[in-house]
Amino acid sequence: MPAATPAPGPSRARSWWGWGYEDAQPDDAECAALGALLPGTLPRPLPPPRVAGLRIARPGATPPAALAHLVSDDPADRAAHAMGKAYRDVMRALRGRPGRIPDLVARPASGQDVADLLDWAGGHGVAVVPYGGGSSVVGGVEYRGDAHRAVLSLDLTAMDRVLAVDPVSGAARIQAGALGPVLEARLRPHGLTLRHFPQSFEFSTLGGWLATRAGGHYATGPTHIDDFVQSLTVVTPAGTGTSLRLPASGAGPSPDRLFLGSEGALGVITEAWMRLQERPRHKLSASVAFTGFRRALDAVRAIARSGLAPANCRLLDPGEALLSGASADGSSVLILGFESARTPVGGPLAAALEIARDHGGRGEAPGADGGAPGDAAVSAWRSAFLRMPYLRDGLARMGAVVETFETAATWDALPALIDAVRTEVGAAARKATGHPATVNCRLTHVYPDGAAPYFTVAVAGRPGDEVAIWDDIKAAALDVLRRHRATVTHHHAVGRDHRPGYDLQRPEPFALALRAAKDALDPHGVLNPGVLVG
Amino acid sequence: MPAATPAPGPSRARSWWGWGYEDAQPDDAECAALGALLPGTLPRPLPPPRVAGLRIARPGATPPAALAHLVSDDPADRAAHAMGKAYRDVMRALRGRPGRIPDLVARPASGQDVADLLDWAGGHGVAVVPYGGGSSVVGGVEYRGDAHRAVLSLDLTAMDRVLAVDPVSGAARIQAGALGPVLEARLRPHGLTLRHFPQSFEFSTLGGWLATRAGGHYATGPTHIDDFVQSLTVVTPAGTGTSLRLPASGAGPSPDRLFLGSEGALGVITEAWMRLQERPRHKLSASVAFTGFRRALDAVRAIARSGLAPANCRLLDPGEALLSGASADGSSVLILGFESARTPVGGPLAAALEIARDHGGRGEAPGADGGAPGDAAVSAWRSAFLRMPYLRDGLARMGAVVETFETAATWDALPALIDAVRTEVGAAARKATGHPATVNCRLTHVYPDGAAPYFTVAVAGRPGDEVAIWDDIKAAALDVLRRHRATVTHHHAVGRDHRPGYDLQRPEPFALALRAAKDALDPHGVLNPGVLVG
Repeated sequence: MPAATPAPGPSRARSWWGWGYEDAQPDDAECAALGALLPGTLPRPLPPPRVAGLRIARPGATPPAALAHLVSDDPADRAAHAMGKAYRDVMRALRGRPGRIPDLVARPASGQDVADLLDWAGGHGVAVVPYGGGSSVVGGVEYRGDAHRAVLSLDLTAMDRVLAVDPVSGAARIQAGALGPVLEARLRPHGLTLRHFPQSFEFSTLGGWLATRAGGHYATGPTHIDDFVQSLTVVTPAGTGTSLRLPASGAGPSPDRLFLGSEGALGVITEAWMRLQERPRHKLSASVAFTGFRRALDAVRAIARSGLAPANCRLLDPGEALLSGASADGSSVLILGFESARTPVGGPLAAALEIARDHGGRGEAPGADGGAPGDAAVSAWRSAFLRMPYLRDGLARMGAVVETFETAATWDALPALIDAVRTEVGAAARKATGHPATVNCRLTHVYPDGAAPYFTVAVAGRPGDEVAIWDDIKAAALDVLRRHRATVTHHHAVGRDHRPGYDLQRPEPFALALRAAKDALDPHGVLNPGVLVG
Repeated sequence: MPAATPAPGPSRARSWWGWGYEDAQPDDAECAALGALLPGTLPRPLPPPRVAGLRIARPGATPPAALAHLVSDDPADRAAHAMGKAYRDVMRALRGRPGRIPDLVARPASGQDVADLLDWAGGHGVAVVPYGGGSSVVGGVEYRGDAHRAVLSLDLTAMDRVLAVDPVSGAARIQAGALGPVLEARLRPHGLTLRHFPQSFEFSTLGGWLATRAGGHYATGPTHIDDFVQSLTVVTPAGTGTSLRLPASGAGPSPDRLFLGSEGALGVITEAWMRLQERPRHKLSASVAFTGFRRALDAVRAIARSGLAPANCRLLDPGEALLSGASADGSSVLILGFESARTPVGGPLAAALEIARDHGGRGEAPGADGGAPGDAAVSAWRSAFLRMPYLRDGLARMGAVVETFETAATWDALPALIDAVRTEVGAAARKATGHPATVNCRLTHVYPDGAAPYFTVAVAGRPGDEVAIWDDIKAAALDVLRRHRATVTHHHAVGRDHRPGYDLQRPEPFALALRAAKDALDPHGVLNPGVLVG
């Protein structure tokens, strides 16, 4: 059953250098107010960078006539595809030194177009960097080095349709270039939702989620994009394949799991059959304040092991709680939420609150089960959450260095890990800048056996040295993660920025297998060079 | 924290040729009673085969002195490692024509022993067939062909310890050779359970479960062994690797997922950190009868999509219900069960029963939530379930051909698939034998987007031709699965028996990657040759 619903048109201009929409970027006054929070930042914000200020070389390759209609060499288009949206990217743009600007931007309309483009690129030494919404915060969509004759940014967003809906099984066949709001708008008339809401939801695509093993908003249950996949179609230089559409299979190692997280290095995911959910009708949330972070951690562990499966179970340390407006009294705040399409959620929320109170939490009683969000702390946090990447750009314009990174570890290892990040990464930031650094932590996802902490490090930089300082802070962070045996990434992907840490963590037999798979599928080494292997 | 609890000793002799324990095999009278159910079977049972009746050649290779203490060339030991426990294996033993008997049986005591054995084997052209409990029903633990100088069965069951327990995260480090009852006995003092109960539980190992992506008893939620893995240690000819112990990670394609389901072709899994669960304290079950199988399917689909997550949701068609004693009136029977360590399960069971009744089910009211099993149909079915593989051996002794296979498909495809299996595989069995065949079906696992049906085909054979008839029936089954785009296996693995179907279903780029990974990790091609690739 083809779904003919039109997608919402892009009504607002995207920033070419910073997060999200141009008109949502902080203005100069907001930048200055943000800078005032960090001692040592600039007196005035850096101006937003202009494409016209960049030197953009002529393309180093020309596509054949048969593909020319898919390819753009417009300088603004190329500049907008030069990097992702990490702090490192934003600051390079602000300082007029962006990453290598791709020679060409291609917008295939079909899997065959992708295959044709890969074929041409492989034969001509042209690196291909798959590009969805461009929201990578790990250096996943840029080119570094000079081993290739030219660089083609392969923008999948013209492939954004829902090709079929199976209402019996609750699934849809969706093209990889569909941005979050586009695919949700196309599923809504069917009463269905993918219900995958990463923070980048508006600015990232299904294909990007799949290629990076994105984590959604929800704290437990199906939240990783991996768990929603029935079947993938992948175009590689060695051929195209589609896995069977299945609810489960035990036939050998999972084919899909090799391409999930492959970050464009093994092939280009062009479409997928995805499991869908009914829209939740029951929603309730509440917040709980804790005097000590360690007791709050114990409460979250107990809730995670309880089987209650909260949709949201986000623990904010005092710094996070303060910044987001969830609490100003030095408390840690736990945001709890429950959702269900079928059954009321008051019971589970009450049970979770009881566990929290058993661990010293000061919880508010949940309201009625009516689909409305919960208390003021929850609302404050929710607004701040969506605004955070914009605020980071505002801080960058004030010369601050901001690093956000996330990881996961088992419960036994978590307290020492969080302490070490606070102490050691904070010290590295201070050492690199001479300024005091703030290190805040929140838990974004919880599991019976562990959790995913998310850290935000902010410190005033030195004009012109911000990227080098950021690199120092990142190296310190990767070193703490390595020593505490915590993953280099829970849901942001490896990209180029986490590569040094990833190479040390990956089991060597798997590295051998991945390298061999890469050589077999991408014999000319043109697919997203430098990512994962090679 | 090392777990010092001793494992239960093997108190009963295992059958070298048939399922399970020797003393649980049907006697001649029970065989005859089973044969009477199928027109055309033998007048008297075939005698149980004797090792002494086999011609067993001298070993074609001798291990070096340093490894000699790990290796046995005892004929009975070798015969017991010649095959798994598929019908095909049992019948070959009954007819005195077992698969190739391995030259040697090795029992490593450590990962280093495994590495040393692989090193020796690789250098001497000796095929290595990893062997756990030997319960493969897909030809996964035998050697076919003659490309290798000798065959070594690598029996991991001497590596059966729980090496560490992490009570904070709820996890344990367990050696791969631990049989189900061994590891559960060692976890019990900690109040923890892996809660993975495949039908083969008594006769299969953790390593076997991991290498074959085993499915557990439970119908929903965490039931596949894949979902319990924190970390794997894999010994390959190219080196040994251990993945980080993590609750989740998004760092590249999952290393563990490449080795899960690799069936010994890429490496030998020697130990794993596994997620554990608390023992359930609340258990309730009930059965629901349906007049039509199609309406029962609709009920199961509604329950699977409800989010109620029954631990058991097994739908028996009239033939299955009759054979297991769950119903004798031509009804289909749905066995429902709920379990929880923390919260009473009366509510979810009542909600599931209500859904079943909405679809025409005649359900009994659940009893009190006290940990006791439910009604008589449930008990009858449970007893029959554990006895089934023994009964299959009894039917084999009566010259019957019995094929069991399982698959999975999305809900939209399921009714036509089940009809086609009944019609076409039944016709193939009748054509191959001239006798009427029975084809029964049950659903073993259910998902929001589909389910896993399990089929049992039984027909009287022709003396001496049973294996060829079985091969015809298997070919017909694989062909129906292919045409209906259903997986060749949901939880039995591919082995050698499903290889023709698997090769047609696997996406070609994944096949290229897997072949490349195999060549990189097993350059001499000695690991379980013929499985998955090569």
